[in-house]
Amino acid sequence: MSNSKALEDIIVLDLTRVLAGPYCTMLLADYGAKVIKIEIPKKGDDTRGFGPLKNGSSMYYANVNRGKKGITLNLKDTEGKKIFLEMVKKADIVVENYRPGVMDKLGVGYDVLKKVNDQIIYAAVSGFGCYGPNSQRPGYDIIAQASGGLMSITGEAGGHALRVGNAMGDVLGGTNLTIGILMALHARTLTGKGQRVDVSLVDSVVSSLETGTQRYFASGKQPELMGNRYASAYPYDSFQASDGLFVIGCGNDKLFKLLCEKVLKQPELLIDPRFETNIKRCENYADLKPIIEEWSVQRTIDENVESILAAGVPAAPINDLKRVTTDPHIAEAREMFVSIHHPVIGDMRVNGNPIKLMTTKADISTPAPELGQDNAEIYGKWLGLSSEQMEELTKKNVL
Amino acid sequence: MSNSKALEDIIVLDLTRVLAGPYCTMLLADYGAKVIKIEIPKKGDDTRGFGPLKNGSSMYYANVNRGKKGITLNLKDTEGKKIFLEMVKKADIVVENYRPGVMDKLGVGYDVLKKVNDQIIYAAVSGFGCYGPNSQRPGYDIIAQASGGLMSITGEAGGHALRVGNAMGDVLGGTNLTIGILMALHARTLTGKGQRVDVSLVDSVVSSLETGTQRYFASGKQPELMGNRYASAYPYDSFQASDGLFVIGCGNDKLFKLLCEKVLKQPELLIDPRFETNIKRCENYADLKPIIEEWSVQRTIDENVESILAAGVPAAPINDLKRVTTDPHIAEAREMFVSIHHPVIGDMRVNGNPIKLMTTKADISTPAPELGQDNAEIYGKWLGLSSEQMEELTKKNVL
Repeated sequence: MSNSKALEDIIVLDLTRVLAGPYCTMLLADYGAKVIKIEIPKKGDDTRGFGPLKNGSSMYYANVNRGKKGITLNLKDTEGKKIFLEMVKKADIVVENYRPGVMDKLGVGYDVLKKVNDQIIYAAVSGFGCYGPNSQRPGYDIIAQASGGLMSITGEAGGHALRVGNAMGDVLGGTNLTIGILMALHARTLTGKGQRVDVSLVDSVVSSLETGTQRYFASGKQPELMGNRYASAYPYDSFQASDGLFVIGCGNDKLFKLLCEKVLKQPELLIDPRFETNIKRCENYADLKPIIEEWSVQRTIDENVESILAAGVPAAPINDLKRVTTDPHIAEAREMFVSIHHPVIGDMRVNGNPIKLMTTKADISTPAPELGQDNAEIYGKWLGLSSEQMEELTKKNVL
Repeated sequence: MSNSKALEDIIVLDLTRVLAGPYCTMLLADYGAKVIKIEIPKKGDDTRGFGPLKNGSSMYYANVNRGKKGITLNLKDTEGKKIFLEMVKKADIVVENYRPGVMDKLGVGYDVLKKVNDQIIYAAVSGFGCYGPNSQRPGYDIIAQASGGLMSITGEAGGHALRVGNAMGDVLGGTNLTIGILMALHARTLTGKGQRVDVSLVDSVVSSLETGTQRYFASGKQPELMGNRYASAYPYDSFQASDGLFVIGCGNDKLFKLLCEKVLKQPELLIDPRFETNIKRCENYADLKPIIEEWSVQRTIDENVESILAAGVPAAPINDLKRVTTDPHIAEAREMFVSIHHPVIGDMRVNGNPIKLMTTKADISTPAPELGQDNAEIYGKWLGLSSEQMEELTKKNVL
């Protein structure tokens, strides 16, 4: 049993490009789904040209497309469309991240696909989703972070709205699309039918705001920007060490007591009227922060974190990418960076899978495909085209 | 078929508290899973006391626990454990977000549960995960954002590492746990057995860094903080309007051409050697930004966004929570805020579900449970305890 893969019976036709869609199909491929990435002949996914490059090959593409099969197909060609529909008959899932309507215009929208296979699950992720007045707006990650309210609650005290440094809208969109696909797969066992799944980057960002929107509904007030400080608990913030910043997360009175008694050795803070309850500490954070920093600035980040953790209080270094990628817990024990061999790039480390199924484990070992590398296997062995047919179709720029 | 729910046959025993776990079981409950939230008698989930409160009831709790059944059970009591194991026999999934080891110490860890039901899926989310050298570290959201590298790549140019303004680590952790549960559910149809699913907030944050880690591997350099600017494309940044900031996302040369010709009416920028390629524009962003702002500062946010979008170029206002919660696309068409009636709070709006299954739709209509409100239904009707047994157990503080 431990050799089986969680999604080993699932076939995915993957039309996605760049990040949100490919992140989703990466999660599925890591768990054994047969993901057939379909790219435009002679061109491929735009990210094949995105940096960083090594030996002329994109590490961007190689990271997020590991474990997938790669084929080429021209969907603008009539024969290409016919071949696509033949594959849809034999597949479980179609995933795409075009702007809504593009697949319909190509003649391969959901309404067409479900006629050839009513069990197909058609999953799409786009900036604003496939319905609603703004559905035709173009949706880059920064557009979703801005539209969805995330930027408006991120930033320095007294500063302005700030973009989160990664493509968080794309990651949330790809992750939610994965949930939608898996839910639809389960629903199919109940109804016998596939369905359409629609995810937008903007909705995904809005959902991530969690209680922020309830605080707004209750108060009618936009939350003020407060840097690393947290409105509902203190000390829950970044603090200065001799060699940089680190964080403390005192979520309740008990943790603050431990911090004062065991770490700062200032039990008198517990009876200071400014700090005796969490609410008081949130109000008087500007008095409390320098008291903590007077202590912490005398020690290094690691010394601070170690002694605070030893007292049972949450603390952490603000890991930069060097620390993240070499951390024994993150990189090794949790396998969040995995070494694989890529035929052009050579040995490289790709990001691990953040979901750990403990029996049917993730398998990250196969490199991303070269453009069209699996045409023979998929079109020949799986779809039954002859070598002559494939040669002919390649010449005509269909494959 | 359209009345059926995607997960209507699934029973979830939900031991989670606060945010990451409850966010996961919220996604499942919206799609029809029977989520039985198990809380400590007379006390309940800590967030029942978290603000904002209305009529003394927590809007925080009400938002993230809508659609769930609520029962009370004392897992420290021998009889309580016995009752829990009886429920495990009849359930599909157990979800918890205690620190790793707590369930084992209570005597209801995975090894015990799988003996009474080898099909049970045991899913846990914690700060650092259930294995690895740091697995016992306490894991608040700020700890995950710091440890996972997200803070190190977010912040103003020349500034310091910044926390994302929502509990992004919790949201990513809860979302990934949902994927893990659904994958394990599918794997069970192949193997006939349940398994353990482990998700950590830190892993989830690390995975969200996407290509950032590949750029680091290629260059060996920590990315510099750059506010709203993006290293790989320009203009892809925030810009000043007469009434605040908005964003433009020119991801490629074609979009920049449209911006210069149709919006700025300065086609000469296209042949300016500083701006003729995307790479040049990224290098000379400090020259380009004021040229764009000279134009944009003369108009309001909405006027700018409208005219830039009309030219086919991605742009968006930086929505604050007022705009997000009243936006016709987000709030109405996409149903990202849904009105429900809560027995104590009254009419309220809860966050919608960001995953849109188009046939077996989400149903967000049942309010969060009062503490122990479903004891009679679950312990009586479902588990078969008599009224006398339930009374007795309630007196003994087991229920």
